[in-house]
Amino acid sequence: MGKKFAVKYQVPFYETDVNQNIKLPHLLSYALHVSGLQSLSLGVSDEEIFKTYNLVWIITDYDIEIDRLPKYGETITVETEATAYNKLFCYRDFNIYAENGDKIMAIHSTFVLMDYETRKVHPVVDDLVATYGVEKIKKILRGPKYEDLENPEETIYHVRYFDLDMNGHVNNSKYLEWMYDVLDVDFLRQHIPKKINLKYVKEIHYGHDIQSRLELDGLISKHEISGDGVHAQARIEWKEKE
Amino acid sequence: MGKKFAVKYQVPFYETDVNQNIKLPHLLSYALHVSGLQSLSLGVSDEEIFKTYNLVWIITDYDIEIDRLPKYGETITVETEATAYNKLFCYRDFNIYAENGDKIMAIHSTFVLMDYETRKVHPVVDDLVATYGVEKIKKILRGPKYEDLENPEETIYHVRYFDLDMNGHVNNSKYLEWMYDVLDVDFLRQHIPKKINLKYVKEIHYGHDIQSRLELDGLISKHEISGDGVHAQARIEWKEKE
Repeated sequence: MGKKFAVKYQVPFYETDVNQNIKLPHLLSYALHVSGLQSLSLGVSDEEIFKTYNLVWIITDYDIEIDRLPKYGETITVETEATAYNKLFCYRDFNIYAENGDKIMAIHSTFVLMDYETRKVHPVVDDLVATYGVEKIKKILRGPKYEDLENPEETIYHVRYFDLDMNGHVNNSKYLEWMYDVLDVDFLRQHIPKKINLKYVKEIHYGHDIQSRLELDGLISKHEISGDGVHAQARIEWKEKE
Repeated sequence: MGKKFAVKYQVPFYETDVNQNIKLPHLLSYALHVSGLQSLSLGVSDEEIFKTYNLVWIITDYDIEIDRLPKYGETITVETEATAYNKLFCYRDFNIYAENGDKIMAIHSTFVLMDYETRKVHPVVDDLVATYGVEKIKKILRGPKYEDLENPEETIYHVRYFDLDMNGHVNNSKYLEWMYDVLDVDFLRQHIPKKINLKYVKEIHYGHDIQSRLELDGLISKHEISGDGVHAQARIEWKEKE
């Protein structure tokens, strides 16, 4: 396991949902921000690796376990740690702790380095990841196999200006927004996610419409974001809100 | 003028736009968060006045002057100060300072207290605003008169789940997102706002579609958010990006 890095964060009003919980897409963005702060503190900031290698970090997979979501006004600790890497993939955990120290969420993530020009995955640069004090492994950790949706409900979304980040691409967190949005608001008022598997397949560009496809079976929802092929897939296991 | 309160804030990656500037709707949310922190520090938190008086603070008007927008990674200071109040309205300024102390933005805002049950404006409670050390005035400060749009372009938006905040209402910052989104992306890549007048007329509820109406005349854009009548109006003066 690698070096740990943690930041305290108080959940603001404008990032809370109808259940007074943090908006999950925002929490994922914030977690990513914390890993960026760690990189900066270690002298390997995103800016630095872009300048030196012309590479950018991209998330490919999330595996999220949720005991409960952080609440409005609560001060949580977002801790991150690179856990391992192999030839192509870097594995990083984020743990969310309540004020009393209880771990309330674990976010396992997979990153790759992408060549900014070619938009292709670049082999991991050993020197770079050595900074995080993390071990190289042979094994490739596989996420679940996402089955094709057989008879999904489908809703069209138009990419909006503020969906874009400064690279002109749709920000990762928007995918999850589109996945949530097709669920019934009453369902979302009564349930919170317990386990989420999310896979990013392909970037989305401005000016395109996407389809958010849903199959809901009891407390399991299966999602697909499609447009020019499949852009993302997810499987969410829900539980009743306490 | 009242007591000042300031917070430093580093602009995160996930809140920056294609120009590497802060997303303005987010900055307005953050500013509001800072005024909430001041209230908390003075013992008159939003929670407290809700419990004591069954009242909530609502923004009705913004008048925003922009020299330049905060940039990605920049650490700004967001300062706030209640400036005056009268029988119904409370006036509050937010000033945004760059790291070198230059003032780069001034946000003049008007707040009212709303009765949470009746959704009607409540007269200002003198005891409450006294806490901010601010002077009562007779005068009512008027924003500009917004003319009706004569021949607007119109785009329909569906209220999304994550547009809602924990009160189940559309968060204020979304109105500005819909106003921006109808502008051409190339226009938004080449221009930044110089002056914004924005008026909130009526709340928007979930499950409704709204129209974002636009008239662009040179470097002046006029906006209307309509649905069940007019919900918000704005006038934005743009300048070329430096």
